[in-house]
Amino acid sequence: MDFSLTTMGTASARPVANKYPSAHVVKIHGRLFLIDCGEGTQLQLSRYGFSHVKIDRIFISHLHGDHLFGIFGLLSTMALMGRTAPLYIYAPEGFEKVFAFFMEHFGEGVIFDVIHVPLISAAPQLIFESRSVEVSAFGLNHRIDAFGFLFKEKEPARNIHKWKIEVDNLTLAEIGTLKRGEDVVRSDGQLLKVEDYTYIPYKGRSMAYCSDTAPFPELASYIRGVDLLYHEATFAEDLHEMARWTFHSTGAQAASVAREAEVGKLVIGHFSSRYRDLNVILKEAQAIFPETELAKEGMKFDIPLVRYSPE
Amino acid sequence: MDFSLTTMGTASARPVANKYPSAHVVKIHGRLFLIDCGEGTQLQLSRYGFSHVKIDRIFISHLHGDHLFGIFGLLSTMALMGRTAPLYIYAPEGFEKVFAFFMEHFGEGVIFDVIHVPLISAAPQLIFESRSVEVSAFGLNHRIDAFGFLFKEKEPARNIHKWKIEVDNLTLAEIGTLKRGEDVVRSDGQLLKVEDYTYIPYKGRSMAYCSDTAPFPELASYIRGVDLLYHEATFAEDLHEMARWTFHSTGAQAASVAREAEVGKLVIGHFSSRYRDLNVILKEAQAIFPETELAKEGMKFDIPLVRYSPE
Repeated sequence: MDFSLTTMGTASARPVANKYPSAHVVKIHGRLFLIDCGEGTQLQLSRYGFSHVKIDRIFISHLHGDHLFGIFGLLSTMALMGRTAPLYIYAPEGFEKVFAFFMEHFGEGVIFDVIHVPLISAAPQLIFESRSVEVSAFGLNHRIDAFGFLFKEKEPARNIHKWKIEVDNLTLAEIGTLKRGEDVVRSDGQLLKVEDYTYIPYKGRSMAYCSDTAPFPELASYIRGVDLLYHEATFAEDLHEMARWTFHSTGAQAASVAREAEVGKLVIGHFSSRYRDLNVILKEAQAIFPETELAKEGMKFDIPLVRYSPE
Repeated sequence: MDFSLTTMGTASARPVANKYPSAHVVKIHGRLFLIDCGEGTQLQLSRYGFSHVKIDRIFISHLHGDHLFGIFGLLSTMALMGRTAPLYIYAPEGFEKVFAFFMEHFGEGVIFDVIHVPLISAAPQLIFESRSVEVSAFGLNHRIDAFGFLFKEKEPARNIHKWKIEVDNLTLAEIGTLKRGEDVVRSDGQLLKVEDYTYIPYKGRSMAYCSDTAPFPELASYIRGVDLLYHEATFAEDLHEMARWTFHSTGAQAASVAREAEVGKLVIGHFSSRYRDLNVILKEAQAIFPETELAKEGMKFDIPLVRYSPE
């Protein structure tokens, strides 16, 4: 029942030694999702123990090279490993040209289907759903079309309060109805209300990814209350103007979004190579939102499962 | 007066953790040449202290992704760093399409000229010449057109034997003539022969790069007597048949080329990810050519300058 984010690349456009361009693995209930695929992603996946072939959904925030140039090598390696399972790539319009170029010149051996799901809508939109998770995309505020992603664990089925089974002599049919979230009316007219007989065993967890983006008014509403927010913080406030021109955020701006959206924890990344000491960015963020951490290559952020156990 | 090879990527098509695809820096008299540009090359350049902008000539052996996919990120970073100097890329025909794709979708900011010099001739051909170095390309034996490269330091100007200056009362004009390699005939009929009055202060050094290739008869003649040979050794002899099918070499085959060509030292790389212990490949090579070393990421192979100093 894991839910974690591993940050494998914390550099922005110009990488420096030991800092990689954007690439992140979200692991939910054992399933791997890749967000962004900068140069070196396949190497970072190996380094941190993630199987290349277990990834079946890739989410590309936007078509700048530092979020994308690793896709060629990753697809080639998947082909070499004999992948046959289809691969879904959620990416802005235009990705189909990048993929067509790849297939024309380097696609020998790619026998698996690659399905490009274009990201279009600026308003939040559900783009993937499984038994345990929902993923939505929403427009960001960057120089070119860019999208953020929201990963939500679905609410689990309700559990029955065990001590009530004996007290009220619940039948199996009644238990099934209550677990489905429906009240029971007995033949003698007695009402068994769902909230009296059942509970939700844990709260569904959630994570949002916002990179690259400048702040914009709607963002907090898109990601309200997530347990973990990954938000870019390319600059510190000393380069506020540069952040504005390049449609990026400062550490303070990322923290303001986190505070306004009332998230559980903020992780910042996508750092400009100008900053040798990232504590400048961290401190200005923590002054606004104390629960802020710096992303580092290979760092894993777990969202713990909080179980509700009334018995 | 340095002449060195730094191997930054020793993996073959499928990279593994901490092994990068092909990328090598040849440094001659302070000048940097890049051979092949696999994914992660720009990161490796940073890691091993090479300036991205100091590279002005890139040699691409062939258009397989593991020798090429780093070019997109490297060009982008050169643009971000404000490069204006032209960049020469020596690569097989077809590279112009790869470059055109890059420029169309990701070329914003590339204001420097990129000159693609197509590699065509299977026979050795001079492709670059400066005051101190000559670079030739020659055809290899791979699944697609692939080229090896020969780097030769030019012979330096002749030095005069100082003790002869006084003995024969050489004039400045006579010294200049002898240093240019021409005999002097004095007005009294005395002949001053170049070889009696001058010497070559050091031997020009040389290095060859052969990857990817299966063995072929002409190869040794192309690279005869080089001080350093980098040759691929993707497999050991246990996978001799696979090497043949895929147009690669085994350690034993690389060593046989080195022995036949009478090179000074052999460095092997481009290892299949199948081999956890590369000593299998090394040992079979050393049994044939003892002066063999395994390439490793970040390893620098210096070719020492041997000065001839008669005084």
